[in-house]
Amino acid sequence: MDEKEEKNHVNRSHKNTQNRYKKPAGSKAPAKKEAANSAARKPKTPPSQRKTAGGQHRHYEKKASKPLRIIPLGGLGEIGKNITLYEYDGDMFLVDCGMSFPDEEMPGIDIVIPDFTYVLENKDKIKGLVVTHGHEDHIGAIPYLLCNFNLPIYATRLTIGLIEGKLQEHRLLADANLNVVKPGDKIKLGKFEIELIHVNHSIPDAVGFAITCGAGTVVQTGDFKIDTTPIDDYVIDMGRLGELGKKGVLALLSDSTNAERPGFTASERIVGESFSNLFKKAGDNRIIVATFSSNIHRIQQIIDEAVRCGRKVAVSGRSMINVVTVASQLGYLKIPNNVLIEIDMIRNYLPGELVIVTTGSQGEPLSALHRIAFSEHRQVEIIPGDMFIISATPIPGNEKLVGRVVNELIKRGANVIYERMYDVHVSGHACQEELKMMMSLTKPKYFIPLHGEQKHLIKHAGLARQMGIPDQNILIAENGDVIELTKSSLKSSETVQAGRVLVDGLGVGDVGSIVLRDRKHLADDGIIIVAVSIDSVTREVLAGPDVVTRGFIYVKESEELIKELRELVLSILERCYYDDLRDWMTIKTRIKERVSRFITNKTRRSPMILPIIMEI
Amino acid sequence: MDEKEEKNHVNRSHKNTQNRYKKPAGSKAPAKKEAANSAARKPKTPPSQRKTAGGQHRHYEKKASKPLRIIPLGGLGEIGKNITLYEYDGDMFLVDCGMSFPDEEMPGIDIVIPDFTYVLENKDKIKGLVVTHGHEDHIGAIPYLLCNFNLPIYATRLTIGLIEGKLQEHRLLADANLNVVKPGDKIKLGKFEIELIHVNHSIPDAVGFAITCGAGTVVQTGDFKIDTTPIDDYVIDMGRLGELGKKGVLALLSDSTNAERPGFTASERIVGESFSNLFKKAGDNRIIVATFSSNIHRIQQIIDEAVRCGRKVAVSGRSMINVVTVASQLGYLKIPNNVLIEIDMIRNYLPGELVIVTTGSQGEPLSALHRIAFSEHRQVEIIPGDMFIISATPIPGNEKLVGRVVNELIKRGANVIYERMYDVHVSGHACQEELKMMMSLTKPKYFIPLHGEQKHLIKHAGLARQMGIPDQNILIAENGDVIELTKSSLKSSETVQAGRVLVDGLGVGDVGSIVLRDRKHLADDGIIIVAVSIDSVTREVLAGPDVVTRGFIYVKESEELIKELRELVLSILERCYYDDLRDWMTIKTRIKERVSRFITNKTRRSPMILPIIMEI
Repeated sequence: MDEKEEKNHVNRSHKNTQNRYKKPAGSKAPAKKEAANSAARKPKTPPSQRKTAGGQHRHYEKKASKPLRIIPLGGLGEIGKNITLYEYDGDMFLVDCGMSFPDEEMPGIDIVIPDFTYVLENKDKIKGLVVTHGHEDHIGAIPYLLCNFNLPIYATRLTIGLIEGKLQEHRLLADANLNVVKPGDKIKLGKFEIELIHVNHSIPDAVGFAITCGAGTVVQTGDFKIDTTPIDDYVIDMGRLGELGKKGVLALLSDSTNAERPGFTASERIVGESFSNLFKKAGDNRIIVATFSSNIHRIQQIIDEAVRCGRKVAVSGRSMINVVTVASQLGYLKIPNNVLIEIDMIRNYLPGELVIVTTGSQGEPLSALHRIAFSEHRQVEIIPGDMFIISATPIPGNEKLVGRVVNELIKRGANVIYERMYDVHVSGHACQEELKMMMSLTKPKYFIPLHGEQKHLIKHAGLARQMGIPDQNILIAENGDVIELTKSSLKSSETVQAGRVLVDGLGVGDVGSIVLRDRKHLADDGIIIVAVSIDSVTREVLAGPDVVTRGFIYVKESEELIKELRELVLSILERCYYDDLRDWMTIKTRIKERVSRFITNKTRRSPMILPIIMEI
Repeated sequence: MDEKEEKNHVNRSHKNTQNRYKKPAGSKAPAKKEAANSAARKPKTPPSQRKTAGGQHRHYEKKASKPLRIIPLGGLGEIGKNITLYEYDGDMFLVDCGMSFPDEEMPGIDIVIPDFTYVLENKDKIKGLVVTHGHEDHIGAIPYLLCNFNLPIYATRLTIGLIEGKLQEHRLLADANLNVVKPGDKIKLGKFEIELIHVNHSIPDAVGFAITCGAGTVVQTGDFKIDTTPIDDYVIDMGRLGELGKKGVLALLSDSTNAERPGFTASERIVGESFSNLFKKAGDNRIIVATFSSNIHRIQQIIDEAVRCGRKVAVSGRSMINVVTVASQLGYLKIPNNVLIEIDMIRNYLPGELVIVTTGSQGEPLSALHRIAFSEHRQVEIIPGDMFIISATPIPGNEKLVGRVVNELIKRGANVIYERMYDVHVSGHACQEELKMMMSLTKPKYFIPLHGEQKHLIKHAGLARQMGIPDQNILIAENGDVIELTKSSLKSSETVQAGRVLVDGLGVGDVGSIVLRDRKHLADDGIIIVAVSIDSVTREVLAGPDVVTRGFIYVKESEELIKELRELVLSILERCYYDDLRDWMTIKTRIKERVSRFITNKTRRSPMILPIIMEI
């Protein structure tokens, strides 16, 4: 077997991580080689695209104030798996611990989580995890961290509720140290004080943080938008952000997801108006709305409109049922009595008396909506005239999946509202004008765009420049970069191990680049297995060669090819016999090469060739 | 081996096809069962979503005029592989013969072509193939048809030029019967007369057809848009379309691609204005523009702007070089002397003196742009400040690919213009207002939307209803439907074999549903092969069991699991020995089941299990 493989698919690595970080950062002694060599005049020149406060190191060196270190371990150069580590004077804490979804380069992978190596190396210093909100890309990896390292978790009530559900599934709830906090609260974690600031987002109870330590105050927004008419009437706390700005914010770390979009993100409330119009249009037909289960305000608006129209509401999809349960219990969802009915009960009502809320707004193949579209849903069968509202926009990569569901629904006679036909969806993230507003409220000295692919980060940095933040005060970092901040300097010159770990079934990190490469190879061309039994003494062929293929060709119509293949292998083995070749590896390699050449010539395909030689 | 498989992945099939179509269609004798049984009063009720001229059959029966039969064999319910068969009074001809690209459900597949079964069954009747324009989804399957059936092909000059290139590659050019025709020409094919009508599209020399036979005149638009200021100053021939409308058009078959988009598609010329602005902004930096190689007007505009700025133009990417060569030779692309330079020569020029035109606007992994982005291009290396213009919008499904390239370019310091940042792309297809204009020009009695997924067809039908075409005169068909038209009736009650055939390397149709299913299984979970040699007499294990995995798990870290697996198989074989089981299939099934259960319990994965037993 020629499988060599690194365990994890690591993007960035740093060998000396441990030694370096065992010393208190920012101590006066120039512990680092570069610093010693260059008399600390010139910080190592950063890569061209990273803008750092190059001119100010001298001041920093003089004061030698302790720097705040911010280490994004996920969420940069990508959408998803947000996790940021803060360190000051030997104390550390984490913000968020999210997962991301695999892309088409990762067949068979369930989810992707951050590489926790650096976190686990610094267990002793880490005082806790504070969480901005309850979306999967901010909480999804918590169980995978907690099974290694049980640290206290702080979050708002709904967020804790959703984390509890996760931990329950992973049987980690009993030992978890969960702490409900609320906007305005200040959490003390070692030398840090973390203040929660209410923000608007597509899930209730979202917060940003004002993080204060000896180096100053840093604002990390979390995912946010500015909604002046949110469903819970609880507008983002611009007052507090402005107050912080007046006092002086050292750095702003802000959500870049929508940095490419000009203008403002519309208020969640306009979706309600669209629902109101559409529900009227639906007449006597059934209404089925698909949306993100976590978008509780959206669900509230659907329920409100259903109540107004005298319709009953049924819920379908595991996560939808889950969230509706948790959110109602915690009071985030207000459902009058006798509105909610079991999905089994819909047959007792006329179509015009029903609204069904489902998962599957991204066209996910196992979701309730997908099952309805393809007639695989046990309780919901399409009635021609049904009004389907897909209250979401496809996340990049899901366009085709959503399209397939829409086509199928239409084919079965449904009336489908999707994409930009009506305002049935608004984003949960700030557009350019809101991002600029955040900057003008907080007036940060330094700016670090978070949450986004390279293109989002660059755009966001461009907005900061427009707002008058000098180029050298803006830093575009990568996962694993160690960002060092003092009152007068911003730099990033080191990296720690950061990257992605793939979760497949129960396995965490046991699928790496070789396994993925093999999976892709198998997917594209299939496999040909050549098995043969050979007498270990006489070296005669005792049985076989048997040729078995999978995913390569339609065997019933390719008997001739398989026969030729068998003869080819026999002739190779004969040749090896006469050459008195005794090394199995060499014989296998010969078979691989010759069979591969034969198949390529015959078919222009390159299946995996796997010779198995059994010695008897 | 348990491989059972249909050869092709066929969507629609009809067993009696051959008998039925051996008889001249439309003969007075009611050759078809349904007609005989029902005294032809009621045509077989069509599926609910197909609207047919149900009320008018009586008139048709009385006159018994010969019907025109239109059979879309591809392009309906999908984007791609357009092919339509026309039949009247025993004569047939084809419009277009395109391919489509595989989706993520077809790993390893190169291209998808139409199922030609019905075409080949009717070889004797088919008089020729007329082609609307030179895009792959209209010409890409021609070589696969021609190697079975060498029929005369009629198309405009550029289209023929592009077909020639294809046939050359497939070594089919020598025997091909290619005929250059031009707008206004009328082609006689049996009892059909086909008039070419100039239309605007994202490739020059595109035409629609006015098809006349005893049943009347049908207009098939082909892909089109209405551009009143096209680059070649050759506006779609609205006059002729209007004239036909005045005389009476029996049916309109029209392009549905953009039927979801309100308003008008912008003129190609506005892209030129954007180029002009961007080229000025580029200053001393290099400009690299990625676009579709077939969009010759776009390339012309890039060249024109380069000439205006005194820049040289280099071309990269096989198909781009190809098309530029063909189009210049044929006079479709006008390039002044000393403007075009070889890509190798760019090092002799300053960045500000250069424009590079490349393929890869869809982020395709082997394209020139992708290679540039990931530093794999031999001649073009990114210089920070380079201006990249992606002059295309991602086709659904390609969003992530394009995003990845954009991120990589930005990371390397390039300035990237993409998506809707500037007007650097316009569609080649008509939006709603143009589609309605086409209807008001041609004033068809019947309307059949072509080219599009279900959602596009339905939207297009909706537009026809808005234009006053009665519901029963609109027909939404599927691939393989036989649409029968007379002066007074429109119906679709039969189907012929139609579907898709997958091309993988040299194999055409030898990868079907079983092979694809195996490929997907292998991609998701990999394979475990269990090989063992057994004495055919004593039934003792002589060698093995050997356990080999691929794409399943990182073996080096799973030795324990593999060991347990080997022991499990040994115990199963022992059990079989004591049970005196002598049927290899049963033994294999036992191994499969037990190993599968073991693996699922241990890992929550379900790799393919492949037992190989060698009898000695």
